[in-house]
Amino acid sequence: MPATLDVLAIGNAIVDVLARVEDSFLADWQLAKGSMRLIDEAEAERLYAAFGPAIEVSGGSAANTVAGVASLGGTAGFIGKVRADQLGAVFAHDIRAAGVRYTMAGTPDGPATGRCLIAVTPDGERTMNTFLGASALIGPEDIAEADVAAAGTLYLEGYLFDRAAAKQAFEKAAAIAGAAGARVALTLSDSFCVARHREDFLALIGSSIDVLFANEAEAKALFRLDDLDGLIAQARRLCPLVVLTRSALGSVIVGGDAVNAVPAERVDEVVDVTGAGDLYAAGFLFGLSRGMGLVDCARLGTFAAAEIIAHFGARPLKPLRRQAEARGLL
Amino acid sequence: MPATLDVLAIGNAIVDVLARVEDSFLADWQLAKGSMRLIDEAEAERLYAAFGPAIEVSGGSAANTVAGVASLGGTAGFIGKVRADQLGAVFAHDIRAAGVRYTMAGTPDGPATGRCLIAVTPDGERTMNTFLGASALIGPEDIAEADVAAAGTLYLEGYLFDRAAAKQAFEKAAAIAGAAGARVALTLSDSFCVARHREDFLALIGSSIDVLFANEAEAKALFRLDDLDGLIAQARRLCPLVVLTRSALGSVIVGGDAVNAVPAERVDEVVDVTGAGDLYAAGFLFGLSRGMGLVDCARLGTFAAAEIIAHFGARPLKPLRRQAEARGLL
Repeated sequence: MPATLDVLAIGNAIVDVLARVEDSFLADWQLAKGSMRLIDEAEAERLYAAFGPAIEVSGGSAANTVAGVASLGGTAGFIGKVRADQLGAVFAHDIRAAGVRYTMAGTPDGPATGRCLIAVTPDGERTMNTFLGASALIGPEDIAEADVAAAGTLYLEGYLFDRAAAKQAFEKAAAIAGAAGARVALTLSDSFCVARHREDFLALIGSSIDVLFANEAEAKALFRLDDLDGLIAQARRLCPLVVLTRSALGSVIVGGDAVNAVPAERVDEVVDVTGAGDLYAAGFLFGLSRGMGLVDCARLGTFAAAEIIAHFGARPLKPLRRQAEARGLL
Repeated sequence: MPATLDVLAIGNAIVDVLARVEDSFLADWQLAKGSMRLIDEAEAERLYAAFGPAIEVSGGSAANTVAGVASLGGTAGFIGKVRADQLGAVFAHDIRAAGVRYTMAGTPDGPATGRCLIAVTPDGERTMNTFLGASALIGPEDIAEADVAAAGTLYLEGYLFDRAAAKQAFEKAAAIAGAAGARVALTLSDSFCVARHREDFLALIGSSIDVLFANEAEAKALFRLDDLDGLIAQARRLCPLVVLTRSALGSVIVGGDAVNAVPAERVDEVVDVTGAGDLYAAGFLFGLSRGMGLVDCARLGTFAAAEIIAHFGARPLKPLRRQAEARGLL
């Protein structure tokens, strides 16, 4: 049976709340720049009260990635939970309007739709504070075998490892995809998340993951190594294809018996890096789904990441496909 | 007693839902480019379902203006109604975070917080579709005499004329401000709104308004005249100070026994004109509150409008005061 979706993602369904802050704000709140931390609803209320004027825009790491895949012209689906509230309606609207198949209904009660309070400093770096809310309720019962088996690539975000039931959903989906011969891709999401679940990640990657996305900090946390050559050597041993993203230094593709470095694109002004890794993965996975070579996949990922960091928010502002075609990338 | 607020505004409390659309979208939905129309909740749901991925950001015409006044370093307050729902919390957070005094609690039941579905075409023009929701519930009982009497300027948006109780609130506040010797300013808001309530507007302006803001289309609808000289002559007769805004053609200040034209600022790329008039009024009213000359007030308004049209959304992204000081406008 042919795959009906290029990419099916499982992740947290989150609405981003973005505000510009000065660096002193991070110091006052003892926030580690560039990281993601989980907070409860009370802490979310406290932090929000201290935030400046904000904008709300749909987010969620894997959700951003499938929105990017659809924007490039791929077929994509998403599994993740919201509540039936106003922010849940915003999330559901935006992902469907992006062209992504999303069929889950909002939960009628329980915690509110998840949100991520993102403090954007003048350097464009983002520091994330996530109240998972309803998205934490996802479990293996939300994974329909037929849906997963019909996808060419299953894409999973490491953030799901922070909740036991979500991790079970994750493992169930990976097993179904593996049995169906689908590609299984994983992003490590965050270095602190990797540190929290290192052994589990290593075991899962070794047994079930075909494509691993990690930035340098995440790879260092996973392998407990500091030098790039060591990371590359470890990556080769662990997984058939590892994509190491290095922000302005570009990316390194470890796979297919080769190591290829692809430079980043120049961006006139980095406005907000939120979603850079997510959109890189979108371009890369779309390229893989079209049978492109690894370096061309990386170039497409690099292009999509450059688009997203030039503006506020982690979803493409204009269709990526036309821009990518104009650039000769598709 | 000295005024405790430079500007107190009464207006609709609205969260904007902004999406980019092609011109064909306006044609398909028979929307008049650049206009504002009122829609009910069912129509809002239908239109939203057809909208592409959107961002949510606090709006409301007079609310944008007082956010701009605060951003320039003035003291400002706002009266307008939301419901106690997630979008109401967003509105209340954003206006307070902007430094505006806003003390109304969200209504516990009734219609949801108002929202404006804004279709932004590639030319940066915005076409607005407003579901007033809870904001339509404002009435004279929401106007506290002490608050109004303590403001240096009372600022009213014409949109309030679309609801009888809101218009009564409006008239009550204008009477209190007039008796207290405060300046009363009005924006006509929209040419269709003017056409709907022309006689009432003329009567109110003639009796109670010290400063009138109107764009050319609104002035034409008010005076039923087509030529600029005729509009200026009529404006002189009607109101002590009339500010005619003309988009890229700048503004014309009719008052103080003179007519002054002030050019618009060049903007590299007009991204989204939402809020241009609101922010012009912010700069102008802030200037008046500081005793600046009319041309300098117009320059400050021109500057604030130029900032807002260079990005998505109708609230300043960075504090206006520092930018205005750097430009020698303050």
